[in-house]
Amino acid sequence: MKTPLTPLDLVRRGLKLYPERTAVVQPGGPRFTYREWGERIYRLARAVGAAVPSGSRVAVLSPNTHQGLLTYAGVPWSGNVLVPLNTRLVSEEYAFQLRHARVSLVLADCTLAPRVEQVCRDLGVPLWVMEEGGEFEARLQAQDASPLPYAVPDEDDVITINYTSGTTSSPKGVMLTHRNTLLNAVETLYYLHFAGDSVYLHTLPDFHANGWGGVWSPFGVGATHVTLPAVRGETIHDAIHTYGVTHLAAAPTVLSMITDPATARRTPRPVRVATAGSPPHARTIADMSALGFDVVQVYGLTETSPLITVAELSDAERALPIPERAALIAKQGFEMLLAGEVEVMTPELTPIPHDGQTLGEIMVRGNLVMKGYLDNPEATEKAFEGGWFHTGDVAVVHPNGRIEIRDRNKDVIISGGENISSVEVEGVLYAHPAVREAVVVAHPDEKWGEVPCAFIALHAGQQASPEELTAHVRQHLAGYKVPKHYIFRDDLPKTASGKFQKFLLRKELWEGRERAVN
Amino acid sequence: MKTPLTPLDLVRRGLKLYPERTAVVQPGGPRFTYREWGERIYRLARAVGAAVPSGSRVAVLSPNTHQGLLTYAGVPWSGNVLVPLNTRLVSEEYAFQLRHARVSLVLADCTLAPRVEQVCRDLGVPLWVMEEGGEFEARLQAQDASPLPYAVPDEDDVITINYTSGTTSSPKGVMLTHRNTLLNAVETLYYLHFAGDSVYLHTLPDFHANGWGGVWSPFGVGATHVTLPAVRGETIHDAIHTYGVTHLAAAPTVLSMITDPATARRTPRPVRVATAGSPPHARTIADMSALGFDVVQVYGLTETSPLITVAELSDAERALPIPERAALIAKQGFEMLLAGEVEVMTPELTPIPHDGQTLGEIMVRGNLVMKGYLDNPEATEKAFEGGWFHTGDVAVVHPNGRIEIRDRNKDVIISGGENISSVEVEGVLYAHPAVREAVVVAHPDEKWGEVPCAFIALHAGQQASPEELTAHVRQHLAGYKVPKHYIFRDDLPKTASGKFQKFLLRKELWEGRERAVN
Repeated sequence: MKTPLTPLDLVRRGLKLYPERTAVVQPGGPRFTYREWGERIYRLARAVGAAVPSGSRVAVLSPNTHQGLLTYAGVPWSGNVLVPLNTRLVSEEYAFQLRHARVSLVLADCTLAPRVEQVCRDLGVPLWVMEEGGEFEARLQAQDASPLPYAVPDEDDVITINYTSGTTSSPKGVMLTHRNTLLNAVETLYYLHFAGDSVYLHTLPDFHANGWGGVWSPFGVGATHVTLPAVRGETIHDAIHTYGVTHLAAAPTVLSMITDPATARRTPRPVRVATAGSPPHARTIADMSALGFDVVQVYGLTETSPLITVAELSDAERALPIPERAALIAKQGFEMLLAGEVEVMTPELTPIPHDGQTLGEIMVRGNLVMKGYLDNPEATEKAFEGGWFHTGDVAVVHPNGRIEIRDRNKDVIISGGENISSVEVEGVLYAHPAVREAVVVAHPDEKWGEVPCAFIALHAGQQASPEELTAHVRQHLAGYKVPKHYIFRDDLPKTASGKFQKFLLRKELWEGRERAVN
Repeated sequence: MKTPLTPLDLVRRGLKLYPERTAVVQPGGPRFTYREWGERIYRLARAVGAAVPSGSRVAVLSPNTHQGLLTYAGVPWSGNVLVPLNTRLVSEEYAFQLRHARVSLVLADCTLAPRVEQVCRDLGVPLWVMEEGGEFEARLQAQDASPLPYAVPDEDDVITINYTSGTTSSPKGVMLTHRNTLLNAVETLYYLHFAGDSVYLHTLPDFHANGWGGVWSPFGVGATHVTLPAVRGETIHDAIHTYGVTHLAAAPTVLSMITDPATARRTPRPVRVATAGSPPHARTIADMSALGFDVVQVYGLTETSPLITVAELSDAERALPIPERAALIAKQGFEMLLAGEVEVMTPELTPIPHDGQTLGEIMVRGNLVMKGYLDNPEATEKAFEGGWFHTGDVAVVHPNGRIEIRDRNKDVIISGGENISSVEVEGVLYAHPAVREAVVVAHPDEKWGEVPCAFIALHAGQQASPEELTAHVRQHLAGYKVPKHYIFRDDLPKTASGKFQKFLLRKELWEGRERAVN
């Protein structure tokens, strides 16, 4: 017998079996039992279902609030597709995504709504503003709270479209299916040892590949979600102590907030931490461990739902002293249980030798790989060349089978867990009248891992200061995409055919490091 | 991207990532690393692939040996369907199943091969006898050991056909798909906390619904399988001590062997035990706990791949004193993560109230439910009436949502974990010339949970002793199906239309008990 594989079924199970448990709580905000949470899902599903035809795209723009979290089940529940928006973008970027996805309705937290008000008006798209006790709550209250089965005609239907910056000038809409996201969610439950007594703190932005599955998976086992709109060292530690948090997920930048001596506290219960985006430093792992956090590195991309590898340790390896253990945790590790085949290969799809030295590209073939990029058959075809999804990440494989990323596509910069397309930033720089040539590459950074660095050649006789270029870029792009370093040159290195030799510029900045990623 | 969901992919992962670990070891027998085990799978797949056309049914008749275990991956690997045979049947029963499944090849352990030699000759089906150093090993050695990808054209293809005794006179062939069995295997890994350091002892017969998934799942995480051909208290404890076993699965009858004071020993590491077939007694749970075993009750049927509920405990419930904890473990509990909807309902498909009193039938709708019964559309249609699979088990639901079985279809007897169809036994009794009427029902039994009890009315003037009837049944049916009690009556109770009132006879035997199952 076949029923659709969907993360909504995990939510259904939790609502059915654990009505009296706490489903969601927000520090300083409300607390909902599973019964109450179910009623809110049914109400939202009915409200959205009444507002747009089934199969519509509905965008959400929200920090990690309980209302934002509600949309991940409530919107698909009535057969619609959720488009989670990055909270750090500027109006022009939102306009592109809302247009590109042909969004029919936008749900925005009151703190962020001003950034999309104009574009919603321009597009004639309704905007529902979410705030405590506001119109959004009134809309929910107006609906029937009785149980409603979820509407998932086909497990290969799209549940979310997540925009991601990659190798192109415009962000691409990653289409993830119900099947993709269910399998990722189950994998998460297994690897992070989630159980009914788990308490999951939403430190990772929920819009990031659906919180790596965390917007759904803990509901499946009756665990408690703690939503955290303001992610800082102090609020994290407060929440851990107040609610007895057992799990969280975060980019290494957030791990540094957690270990910051100014606010760090020992956890009352052991806390299991999934981290990804860049490998955690040995020092961070040691500091986390001393505070009661057990760090597990995972790896993946929005395009892979997202988690496809885990830095799995055996019992013996867990018992190693911190430096050796940290070295293992800092590698990306092994393909996950349901990831399918994760291989490091040459462009001709030949697996590289497991010698810890030969470089290849990480490719994956399996059920976690997205359906494709929305309305972008060219990019989709390129990404799936030869039947394997190409991650763009360059890695070695150690003799024990562990994958370790050493480099990546030169057009991608990862800063504090956010992907930046260097091509997108270059496009904006070129729009400045003084700029003749612009190449943006990753610059290593102590706090953010990497930050964008712009190499600029100006038109003869023109002037443009870093401050001026920064102001220009900031008008069009999110703050984290703005170059933090400018290097002015008369001319930038090119191949005979006139293509920029990005790798030479990048090499300058990464000289003497073992890895060209951070 | 879609690739087939199949437990063979779990095996593939283990073979790829953990080549140096021990995959399989047999007490007093050989030990194989994952690399060696992979070579054996590829060899067997090639040998079978060369012997029969793809899509053939291949039967295996074996106790829990390493060779038997090998067939669960090796046979489907080359695109064929495995038919695991119960090791306790007689020739006539094997003949029925081999014919019904149109089996093309039989693999039989040397200790059991004599029981199928004649029927294989009659059917013209080749028989490969498995023994250490024998012809089966020679066949493997003759094949190439190089890696071979598994052949699974579609995840909804059948991977195994498992014969089960139920409400009909002949056993039915349960068709389980790759998708069914993968999802069951993943669920098992999650609920039993399997990891790379786990050591799984095969105490449950592998032919029982594919060892509840245990013939595949531990391979997925690089765990070690200990195959145990002779399951006795002493051999179990020896294996636990020799290999550091962490997991096993067993019917309550085997738990009693484990706690038998004559051979019981404390485990060197905690051992997690899945049990099903009938609820474990509080005393057994207490004894097991004192020896270092943590018992988890699961429930399901061959038709449900098999596991669909788990007697899940919260941390608080785990801390309860044994009697209260045992009472919770003795209930079937909650629907599992990937089981889909498990409901207790009236024949009109209305869920019963959660009052711990109202009786209903356990029904399930989801991805673990079989594809159907082989060549039996009538039985399939009946089992799936109204779009729900009908288990035949009668249960209450407690206010906290826990399902508890109280009774079952009167035609099914479960003895020491084996299903017996009373209709099948009655059919054989009727074939005896002295028998006029025969009704077989479950009799409670201290050791086996239940045993068959025959109510017999003889033809006028005829005689037949229990010994004579026993000898007659034993000729045609497996020993565990033979009635252990005979009750002679002049006449058996019937309805106005002449149908036997089985429930009245059953009631006699179960008077004064809270549950009518054991």
